[in-house]
Amino acid sequence: MTHAPTPTGLDAVVDALLASYDRDSGDTPLCNPLPSRESIAEFFERVRRLLFPGFYVDVDLPAAGRRYHVGTWVCELHGTLSRLLRLAFAHEGPDRDPEEVRTQARAVSFAFVQGIAPLRDALLQDARAALEGDPAARSIEEIILTYPGFQSIMAHRVAHALFKAGVPFVPRAIAEHSHERTGIDIHPGAEIGARFFIDHGTGVVIGETSSIGDNVKIYQGVTLGALSVHRRLAGSKRHPTLEDDVVVYAGATVLGGETVIGRGAVVGGNAFITHSVAPGARVVGGSPSEERR
Amino acid sequence: MTHAPTPTGLDAVVDALLASYDRDSGDTPLCNPLPSRESIAEFFERVRRLLFPGFYVDVDLPAAGRRYHVGTWVCELHGTLSRLLRLAFAHEGPDRDPEEVRTQARAVSFAFVQGIAPLRDALLQDARAALEGDPAARSIEEIILTYPGFQSIMAHRVAHALFKAGVPFVPRAIAEHSHERTGIDIHPGAEIGARFFIDHGTGVVIGETSSIGDNVKIYQGVTLGALSVHRRLAGSKRHPTLEDDVVVYAGATVLGGETVIGRGAVVGGNAFITHSVAPGARVVGGSPSEERR
Amino acid sequence: MTHAPTPTGLDAVVDALLASYDRDSGDTPLCNPLPSRESIAEFFERVRRLLFPGFYVDVDLPAAGRRYHVGTWVCELHGTLSRLLRLAFAHEGPDRDPEEVRTQARAVSFAFVQGIAPLRDALLQDARAALEGDPAARSIEEIILTYPGFQSIMAHRVAHALFKAGVPFVPRAIAEHSHERTGIDIHPGAEIGARFFIDHGTGVVIGETSSIGDNVKIYQGVTLGALSVHRRLAGSKRHPTLEDDVVVYAGATVLGGETVIGRGAVVGGNAFITHSVAPGARVVGGSPSEERR
Amino acid sequence: MTHAPTPTGLDAVVDALLASYDRDSGDTPLCNPLPSRESIAEFFERVRRLLFPGFYVDVDLPAAGRRYHVGTWVCELHGTLSRLLRLAFAHEGPDRDPEEVRTQARAVSFAFVQGIAPLRDALLQDARAALEGDPAARSIEEIILTYPGFQSIMAHRVAHALFKAGVPFVPRAIAEHSHERTGIDIHPGAEIGARFFIDHGTGVVIGETSSIGDNVKIYQGVTLGALSVHRRLAGSKRHPTLEDDVVVYAGATVLGGETVIGRGAVVGGNAFITHSVAPGARVVGGSPSEERR
Amino acid sequence: MTHAPTPTGLDAVVDALLASYDRDSGDTPLCNPLPSRESIAEFFERVRRLLFPGFYVDVDLPAAGRRYHVGTWVCELHGTLSRLLRLAFAHEGPDRDPEEVRTQARAVSFAFVQGIAPLRDALLQDARAALEGDPAARSIEEIILTYPGFQSIMAHRVAHALFKAGVPFVPRAIAEHSHERTGIDIHPGAEIGARFFIDHGTGVVIGETSSIGDNVKIYQGVTLGALSVHRRLAGSKRHPTLEDDVVVYAGATVLGGETVIGRGAVVGGNAFITHSVAPGARVVGGSPSEERR
Amino acid sequence: MTHAPTPTGLDAVVDALLASYDRDSGDTPLCNPLPSRESIAEFFERVRRLLFPGFYVDVDLPAAGRRYHVGTWVCELHGTLSRLLRLAFAHEGPDRDPEEVRTQARAVSFAFVQGIAPLRDALLQDARAALEGDPAARSIEEIILTYPGFQSIMAHRVAHALFKAGVPFVPRAIAEHSHERTGIDIHPGAEIGARFFIDHGTGVVIGETSSIGDNVKIYQGVTLGALSVHRRLAGSKRHPTLEDDVVVYAGATVLGGETVIGRGAVVGGNAFITHSVAPGARVVGGSPSEERR
Repeated sequence: MTHAPTPTGLDAVVDALLASYDRDSGDTPLCNPLPSRESIAEFFERVRRLLFPGFYVDVDLPAAGRRYHVGTWVCELHGTLSRLLRLAFAHEGPDRDPEEVRTQARAVSFAFVQGIAPLRDALLQDARAALEGDPAARSIEEIILTYPGFQSIMAHRVAHALFKAGVPFVPRAIAEHSHERTGIDIHPGAEIGARFFIDHGTGVVIGETSSIGDNVKIYQGVTLGALSVHRRLAGSKRHPTLEDDVVVYAGATVLGGETVIGRGAVVGGNAFITHSVAPGARVVGGSPSEERR
Repeated sequence: MTHAPTPTGLDAVVDALLASYDRDSGDTPLCNPLPSRESIAEFFERVRRLLFPGFYVDVDLPAAGRRYHVGTWVCELHGTLSRLLRLAFAHEGPDRDPEEVRTQARAVSFAFVQGIAPLRDALLQDARAALEGDPAARSIEEIILTYPGFQSIMAHRVAHALFKAGVPFVPRAIAEHSHERTGIDIHPGAEIGARFFIDHGTGVVIGETSSIGDNVKIYQGVTLGALSVHRRLAGSKRHPTLEDDVVVYAGATVLGGETVIGRGAVVGGNAFITHSVAPGARVVGGSPSEERR
Repeated sequence: MTHAPTPTGLDAVVDALLASYDRDSGDTPLCNPLPSRESIAEFFERVRRLLFPGFYVDVDLPAAGRRYHVGTWVCELHGTLSRLLRLAFAHEGPDRDPEEVRTQARAVSFAFVQGIAPLRDALLQDARAALEGDPAARSIEEIILTYPGFQSIMAHRVAHALFKAGVPFVPRAIAEHSHERTGIDIHPGAEIGARFFIDHGTGVVIGETSSIGDNVKIYQGVTLGALSVHRRLAGSKRHPTLEDDVVVYAGATVLGGETVIGRGAVVGGNAFITHSVAPGARVVGGSPSEERR
Repeated sequence: MTHAPTPTGLDAVVDALLASYDRDSGDTPLCNPLPSRESIAEFFERVRRLLFPGFYVDVDLPAAGRRYHVGTWVCELHGTLSRLLRLAFAHEGPDRDPEEVRTQARAVSFAFVQGIAPLRDALLQDARAALEGDPAARSIEEIILTYPGFQSIMAHRVAHALFKAGVPFVPRAIAEHSHERTGIDIHPGAEIGARFFIDHGTGVVIGETSSIGDNVKIYQGVTLGALSVHRRLAGSKRHPTLEDDVVVYAGATVLGGETVIGRGAVVGGNAFITHSVAPGARVVGGSPSEERR
Repeated sequence: MTHAPTPTGLDAVVDALLASYDRDSGDTPLCNPLPSRESIAEFFERVRRLLFPGFYVDVDLPAAGRRYHVGTWVCELHGTLSRLLRLAFAHEGPDRDPEEVRTQARAVSFAFVQGIAPLRDALLQDARAALEGDPAARSIEEIILTYPGFQSIMAHRVAHALFKAGVPFVPRAIAEHSHERTGIDIHPGAEIGARFFIDHGTGVVIGETSSIGDNVKIYQGVTLGALSVHRRLAGSKRHPTLEDDVVVYAGATVLGGETVIGRGAVVGGNAFITHSVAPGARVVGGSPSEERR
Repeated sequence: MTHAPTPTGLDAVVDALLASYDRDSGDTPLCNPLPSRESIAEFFERVRRLLFPGFYVDVDLPAAGRRYHVGTWVCELHGTLSRLLRLAFAHEGPDRDPEEVRTQARAVSFAFVQGIAPLRDALLQDARAALEGDPAARSIEEIILTYPGFQSIMAHRVAHALFKAGVPFVPRAIAEHSHERTGIDIHPGAEIGARFFIDHGTGVVIGETSSIGDNVKIYQGVTLGALSVHRRLAGSKRHPTLEDDVVVYAGATVLGGETVIGRGAVVGGNAFITHSVAPGARVVGGSPSEERR
């Protein structure tokens, strides 16, 4: 152990780091910059500001001029997202033409921006479902302002739109940004229908090939997972299907790509399910058929 | 898909958003500003700075002048909270008189500020309970600095004070601010006694009408929940009661408004409880009566 | 309740707070400043920037001058850490000589800095293990950028290095900084081998005296805990040992300092283990021997 | 001299300051807040950004969305100016009705905003005059970017518009903001025609009741002053008149409210003028009829 | 000329700079840090905020808590000044004992802070003199907010107090900070009486050993200078004396340490004076005995 | 006058501004961004930090790592300057090839960076000349820290280097940045020898084609100007020549491109010179041959 840094001591540290950076240059972490976590978080903040102005960050929206402010936010969002996507697409390989990457980034970004008003309407439906599903909820504003499950579905619908557009890195990073805050881990690939509601939410895991219908309700600690993690399964449907109007109570586990929870079925707390459940059925866990919150 | 934004393309995006904003004007998310998440987080940071100066943010508190600094922090806290409360109360309805709202906001804010020294003393008791309850804990400072369970009870005691004062939105937002960081979800309505300790904590859920005595200890993944989520139950006691000196080990679930865990009882890990437990009893889960941490 | 703050009313609030600060002066929270959460978070951000430039915060690293930038980051990291350690060591007691504390802080800090290139290499091995272990993972960059399990082992390896150097407060604060973000709670004292992978991770708890071999994989909700939390056990081995190549599936609980999961064994989802498991064995939970993700 | 601050010593300092603040409460410097220098400077920066985007502060003006950005800047400018004017008008006396003050502030502010495009066109004419008048000037952009005389006339035209609208404090503060930067001191009351050019400019003083025609050129160190500073002259015309096409060379002094420099006259460097000069005349200083730059 | 930076090219630049830094180590610019311009400007801003709250920077001074805010500002000012003075005194020589330097810095700083209320009262007298002396002035607030002559005497009274306390570097830096903004150059050594007023001010120079009585008025471009700049004169009285009630009009020059402008005398614009002037006399320049503004 | 902004009223304002922007599109102020004043000021701050670390902004330069910090500053300076130059060169015309502009910008920037150590040595010579020339100066550090004449020659040597490299806009903007602060107006084209000293300086003007030898001293208010400002003279030598060891006292004016002040000559205060002066001569103004400061 050297007792205090000397110029020589520092040089050795720096040399070792540079060597380490270069050693994995096959993986190119340093040569080709990725969109950073910081910039992805900034993008998501811009989305939230545009979707629900005044709920997450303070805004000053004068009545007469709100059109200009909203337009400016749209431009800024498009600018931020285009930059992110350019970095993300460029990282796909050294043979990509920069001009083509730029065009693709702008096109995907503008398509996203064009989808933002419909996205807002879908999210308001999610918020209304939460208001109906939680006796403690007092207003739709409270849900938009405070519910982690609402934050989670907001992040998912944003990430999923980019996932479907074939964007690398960014969708997953948005999902993890939300996972960090809510404790809810939804893979950006999961298909989720309208009016989705997760209550409490900490510990929820929803796998990549899950498929969820409309009006589904899920509580904390629920896993929609795979029966196996063999690499050869990548790409196949490994996670369950939940049809419309399903409810899954806290701590339940539903596994397998061929497992279907039929329309209107209820999965009890802590239940462990690896086979399909008939529509309208009620499956209990290792304990009485309670519902809890 | 439009391939690049044009003035016309942008106008369509902005028009659609403005239409979406106006469509839910019955819900008034845009007309009447709410206290934002950002400003609520700022309020909570000011509370933490005043309660335990130097633990969470760097402060420079000169010995001779500390009275002035602390006084300034008190003023700033009162100013921030008055503003938040004005927005929150004003949101209760269009018929509220602005001057009355202002007076109410100032009164509730100053009452909160007057309670801050007693709150600090209560929190020091919570910290001492944690020091006694965790063999890995080394000092009271370590608990104040690092324990998520301590952060959680701090946020709860703040949120609960505002909840009891009838403040809308803000208590729940403080609770969720803490839930995001600790993974511990305590409804601001829950009644919690002195010297409360949650260890590890991720996944804990404590419902709105829970009632918890003194010297209670809870581990990660514990749910104090309801047996049913029917909307007609809103307002009734739906969550359990834990009397003094109760311990609930990791992963246990206790449900129901009439369920009472008697004084000094111990609920084992992963236990699933829907009926009352006698004082001093020891309830095991689906597995041996272990304690774990 | 006073209805609005008066100079006298404010004075009473300030007096009460100052009295509360002084009352616990035996605990010295105010006299001797601790390293704050804010400054510890800043330190960790500097570590992450140096380990994987461009992944977490935007950096501008010109090819020709990168040696200077990296050297500056090393200096800044050493400066930040020395300051933190000085505060932390000084807090150990009033009898410590300030000059000796300063020397110790500089020495431990520089030793940490000297270990940063090897630390990076160890983390790249962890990232490669994640790439192999998760069919959904697409590249090593994606893991470094987004996986919470990777963030968690990064924080742990940093905290553990300082823990072994006898640093008070700081290792635990780093661990909690990571716990807040990932929902994964690893005590800085835990010994963890090479190529460690936690998937999803929310709710994982790994106790202080756990001992984990190489190539181990763990899923969300797993607890490696103690059978008892009696204070007299502080210092003894209270948490289990996992040998090389062990896999523990979601929600499983492994308890006890004498419990050893033998090389290559698999612990099924939701299993509850309080006794040792033979090498290569497969232990199921209260349910079929499934694997899930 | 006290050798180090004690609580008592600090209290004495604070008491003395509060007493000093209260002593001049007839002047109300503390009771009724003025617009601060900081906020007036911010207003002027917003004006400059709107007049010549990209010249003074970096802006990002995407082609497709520039309408939104410019609209937002207009709103922000109007908001900033309304706030300033409210403070300024409210300071005129305790008997002013707050609602009336607010209405007046908004009206004057919006009238200013409506004048901003014509103001820009007038300033472009000033810039063109500078381009024609200075052999060293290379382009109109260079003048807008760098010439202090141009900065000065920009500030004057802004300050003069508010002066004519009867705004207290703010016009003079804008004039001094510019005086600080350029060394050119133009009273906001001065009437200045089109295509005005000051070269170099340091030390120029133009008094309140000066009247300047079109196409006038002035060099550094020129004073347009009064013959006497008796208080009873306040309100009368005390400063000279310069008709169209006049040139005044460096260091010249022109004094008196009845002094008229006739159309096209030239005042030589260091000349000292207290009587009118005929149109087309050429007046030398204490030295040959040189022109200099 | 190298066409693009290479690592080698950069190394050469850095080597040359380090060599240059080391070459003048006799002058120690790098070894022993000076108080920077940035930190001296910050100190002066803190003084201005305390002297006239709300005039220069926006402040929020709640009525009930203003005592705490002002006390905090006093503490911050004392902290900032102590740090500056420690650096300044330490720079006087390598043989100074650090502890003694620290004590001296604290003592001088606190003495300054104790003088701040009297300083404020003196400045209000200066402002009243300006109000009386300028027909264009409308209120004392306008003078405090906007007059450069007032800014200049404020900076001078601050710098002079530190100059008399034997502080190196800092007084001159404050004087230049003000000179940059106002164009008025007053050496911190100059002795200036009560109710001093400089109008317009650009180009005024007042030398180190000038001595100025009460109620003196000076206009722009006035020099109070020395007849010779021989180094052997350092320390002797080289600049003139102005007795009470003197007025010096714009552009006048008064030179020499033995030159005395007697009580109530008036020096005309552009006058050039190198000999004493009798009390009550009126001295004209190269032009009529005008007064101008 | 519209009394309050309406959406329609705002639209009219925005339309008028956009029309104004477009009207002068021949001058392209909006299409092709210029380097802004803000970014040019940032560049100059980076230069000052590198030339005299710790004098202008606070820096933390650890002994062992100073090489890295200085190297990083060099890289940052090069990056900032390259960006500025790219914008400046691109503005020269629409026919310039972007890649060529980029190459030119990098080359000129790196050549500037390579000249920074020699520039520092030249400035130390200027500072030593000031120390010798001013009896009030106490140390070379005081001059570097506070003297406006030193700031001015520093800015000039930077601007002149870029001027000689053919850079448009930026040299003049640097000169004006300095002119704003010091009141000293030196055209970037002026040729100035070694050991140059300007004392006080407010009001000094030095024209584009001035030529100044070594060891020259100039006081406040001095003009080195042209006899005529006819546009056809652009490019010719219009400003005077000062040979080595010349002194020009305050307020003197020297005009004309053929005017040569011979080696060692002294020009008295307020002198007005339009013809050459013999070496060693002493020229008085309209007043005795005094020297003043």
